[in-house]
Amino acid sequence: MKIVLLGSGNVATHLGKAFKMAGQTISQVWSRNPVHAAELADTLAAETLTDLSDLDYEANLYIISVKDEGIAELVSALKLKDQLVVHTSGTTGISVLDGVSSKFGVLYPVQTFSKVKSVDFRSIPIAIEGNTPEVCALIRSIADRLSETVIELDSTQRKTLHISAVFACNFTNHLYALAKGLLDEQDIDFDLIRPLIAETADKIQMNDPASVQTGPAIRGDVSTMQAHLDLLKDEPDLKLIYEKLSQSIVNLQERSAG
Amino acid sequence: MKIVLLGSGNVATHLGKAFKMAGQTISQVWSRNPVHAAELADTLAAETLTDLSDLDYEANLYIISVKDEGIAELVSALKLKDQLVVHTSGTTGISVLDGVSSKFGVLYPVQTFSKVKSVDFRSIPIAIEGNTPEVCALIRSIADRLSETVIELDSTQRKTLHISAVFACNFTNHLYALAKGLLDEQDIDFDLIRPLIAETADKIQMNDPASVQTGPAIRGDVSTMQAHLDLLKDEPDLKLIYEKLSQSIVNLQERSAG
Repeated sequence: MKIVLLGSGNVATHLGKAFKMAGQTISQVWSRNPVHAAELADTLAAETLTDLSDLDYEANLYIISVKDEGIAELVSALKLKDQLVVHTSGTTGISVLDGVSSKFGVLYPVQTFSKVKSVDFRSIPIAIEGNTPEVCALIRSIADRLSETVIELDSTQRKTLHISAVFACNFTNHLYALAKGLLDEQDIDFDLIRPLIAETADKIQMNDPASVQTGPAIRGDVSTMQAHLDLLKDEPDLKLIYEKLSQSIVNLQERSAG
Repeated sequence: MKIVLLGSGNVATHLGKAFKMAGQTISQVWSRNPVHAAELADTLAAETLTDLSDLDYEANLYIISVKDEGIAELVSALKLKDQLVVHTSGTTGISVLDGVSSKFGVLYPVQTFSKVKSVDFRSIPIAIEGNTPEVCALIRSIADRLSETVIELDSTQRKTLHISAVFACNFTNHLYALAKGLLDEQDIDFDLIRPLIAETADKIQMNDPASVQTGPAIRGDVSTMQAHLDLLKDEPDLKLIYEKLSQSIVNLQERSAG
């Protein structure tokens, strides 16, 4: 299979490498940033596509993996016929691709990618969608080469999945960063809570998160919460986040009980 | 070493088991809830202490592991001389123990404990404090039997550590629960984001969390954030948490850059 990769960010990079490792050929790499495109093309032994008019029309798959707001513009510059085109966005609907080709869809890997760390793509769930059942089956056959878990979701479900991922991953990572900021101020090593972070994530691999909630809010430990809010009095942002998340823990507990 | 355990919650339970596994004797278990005390005493092959006036005065260590607001009341009911007494609270200062004995301090394991999952205590950092350097050394020698990482922190530092743990663990787990709630509404399996949660926690074991932040907020991807807020329009609590945490990600990024 010959693939054209349009984009050079974290998702494009990890996806390109995963396809390469699965024995596929990356024909061309394009990016709005030509330096990034050349770097990734080099890694993938592909040609750098500097001008979209030089697009390889013989590829079997065109992957659009750019910022959400860049998808529509890129699509308007592409003129394909019946070649398969997918984007990799969680939030953008399938319809943005309407008209670019007779076969289009979505291939959204549910994972956080960064330049500093490789990941095992086989264990990453991939949510797919196609403009027809046949196209969806075609995308599934491709996604199956990368991952053990391929699931069909419509654009609304995928958007919900993406928001959930923002809560469970992006916001969670930010809470780690806020925790580190608090520790840094007191010269306390972040290493002290790394095992706690690992255990917190490990615990929900086999459990429903609400059922293993711990901490002052779920215990109704008002005096501890007040002591914490007192200590955060000079950090209004952190204080507000502390209050809102504690209240949200109590609300969820009450809804579950009620 | 002979230990009296005052408390029967998650921390008391895991600590009692860890001491037992390290070859120590748990002499008595007391709890405000006598049924829980009897259950834990049974597990630890200890006597159930139903009346504090029957306290074993021959023990080497008295561990107070009750809710923070219960510590002072329990302390007022204890009359010891020079036996070592510690509490296990992150937020309560050492001074609550002043007067209970000539030797007192804190032994705070930095971990989340639940009934459903055992943990390897050797990898759990323990923060300690003693009312004198000698007592601190004594507590260190005891904590060393349980954990590879024992660190002396004063009460203010420990409180900061505890707040950090609330952010990085309790709030994080709640974000997992909120994510699951969103997925449940659309009949999407929580399994789809379990690998993402594992990877998010794994990534910061070797990296500074701020340096591996991903997601729409750090990318400045306003259109995705707006799409998410639109989808959360009927969930004002989630919408507010989404807004505040996204803003906080941007603030931290700006502070780091500025």
